[in-house]
Amino acid sequence: MASTFTTTRRVAFCETDMAGIVHFSYFYRYMEDVEHAFFRSLGLSIMEKQPDGSIVGWPRVSAKCNFKAPLYFEDEVAITLSVQRIGVKSLTLDIHFNRGDELVALGTMKTVCCHFTRGKPMESIAIPDSYLSKIEEASTDA
Amino acid sequence: MASTFTTTRRVAFCETDMAGIVHFSYFYRYMEDVEHAFFRSLGLSIMEKQPDGSIVGWPRVSAKCNFKAPLYFEDEVAITLSVQRIGVKSLTLDIHFNRGDELVALGTMKTVCCHFTRGKPMESIAIPDSYLSKIEEASTDA
Amino acid sequence: MASTFTTTRRVAFCETDMAGIVHFSYFYRYMEDVEHAFFRSLGLSIMEKQPDGSIVGWPRVSAKCNFKAPLYFEDEVAITLSVQRIGVKSLTLDIHFNRGDELVALGTMKTVCCHFTRGKPMESIAIPDSYLSKIEEASTDA
Amino acid sequence: MASTFTTTRRVAFCETDMAGIVHFSYFYRYMEDVEHAFFRSLGLSIMEKQPDGSIVGWPRVSAKCNFKAPLYFEDEVAITLSVQRIGVKSLTLDIHFNRGDELVALGTMKTVCCHFTRGKPMESIAIPDSYLSKIEEASTDA
Repeated sequence: MASTFTTTRRVAFCETDMAGIVHFSYFYRYMEDVEHAFFRSLGLSIMEKQPDGSIVGWPRVSAKCNFKAPLYFEDEVAITLSVQRIGVKSLTLDIHFNRGDELVALGTMKTVCCHFTRGKPMESIAIPDSYLSKIEEASTDA
Repeated sequence: MASTFTTTRRVAFCETDMAGIVHFSYFYRYMEDVEHAFFRSLGLSIMEKQPDGSIVGWPRVSAKCNFKAPLYFEDEVAITLSVQRIGVKSLTLDIHFNRGDELVALGTMKTVCCHFTRGKPMESIAIPDSYLSKIEEASTDA
Repeated sequence: MASTFTTTRRVAFCETDMAGIVHFSYFYRYMEDVEHAFFRSLGLSIMEKQPDGSIVGWPRVSAKCNFKAPLYFEDEVAITLSVQRIGVKSLTLDIHFNRGDELVALGTMKTVCCHFTRGKPMESIAIPDSYLSKIEEASTDA
Repeated sequence: MASTFTTTRRVAFCETDMAGIVHFSYFYRYMEDVEHAFFRSLGLSIMEKQPDGSIVGWPRVSAKCNFKAPLYFEDEVAITLSVQRIGVKSLTLDIHFNRGDELVALGTMKTVCCHFTRGKPMESIAIPDSYLSKIEEASTDA
């Protein structure tokens, strides 16, 4: 069974729209925030400079969110990540948004490990072992 | 066969991130922009005040995007909406993002027609005829 | 001498731009966040519903920021608010942005207390006593 | 007397907040958009790669905006830039926001010409002649 990682945040005023609720585009930013916090918790970074000056990053292949209930200004939201699948080059993350006991939204994000070399198109690569071992360990219950 | 509606925009500097490409969260805003422009083109608004002071709006049930290629600062993007399905209360929209001939991303957004009355939770409603007739007409080729 | 109120935050990936630094527009959002946290710390809200259904809010008259040094992804920033001036209808807030000992930016924001009544233009009002006493107390050292 | 450069835009839904008006942070993005459109109109770019791989860019020293009236969803806004001052290393731009005849906001932005070399701190430089001649010409009436 998968282990989970949770952050909480409070809805900011600038994240609301004229309908009085959080604009749906912010849910994808919240997803990214928990993904990055998860990486940080493992001592990893989402943009990691390599000894040769190139960068290993994790652009999105797809991101989806199902919205169950609106979020309001100053709501406290728990955002919980679980690793659904570790592929050779990709990660699939499930993200639950909860306000107290209420499930507010449910997202899925697929990212692919890429090599960014100056002046070349980015290139997908097999997830390096330094990432893989930590992500696998964090994703599995003892 | 479905008819389509297209807008174009140029990528703004503030929409890029430190990876040098458009941050994925903006694709969802681009989707919304073409949806709203489509409504405007039919003489409709996405937030329409009713005679009784209540509002008819279209919050999202789900939104998904598949990313095929990065977008860069000052790229010109054509964003093309087609109505995939008209339900009793909901609309499903497909959105293609193109830079010239290249398909950059492909999104799907499901919205539900809702009634916002001051001080009450929003309530989903059957799509009013005034919307339905225009959306059906715009979605179908002669 | 003025008392101060400080929050800290970590720079999010989506706040960076292709120059690799925090886009300047986010400094104004950071200013607003510390303003709202300051209000919350006093048991006040920036959008407060009144018994008659109208709302008391605090729109901006002006906002300025001087940028001394760039902020980078994952930087931890201390954002410190001090009340520079309490007018009859307005507040002037100074905001310092620090990364460790380094002053990164320095902002000033003037807000005006307003009454929002449904269907009418917003109207500036004298700051109600319930706000005034708390803001004055929080702004002054013993 | 200064010559001016104008773009127009329509307020997007995601730019509004729960007060029903454009969030003030977007005015700074609008300022940047007109600045970049002005540069493009001169055949210049705000991020220009040099033959040696370094980049010439224009980070902000300060930005200020005075807000006169709120902007609403779908408002059409004319954003007019005039060059207030050309310094050795810096530009000061005035920006007027108008809805029809009404002045909605008035901004000032000071930018400094900088050299970005990989792995070094950015460095302010004298505005290159290739920029200077075009900006001076565009800023002055015949």
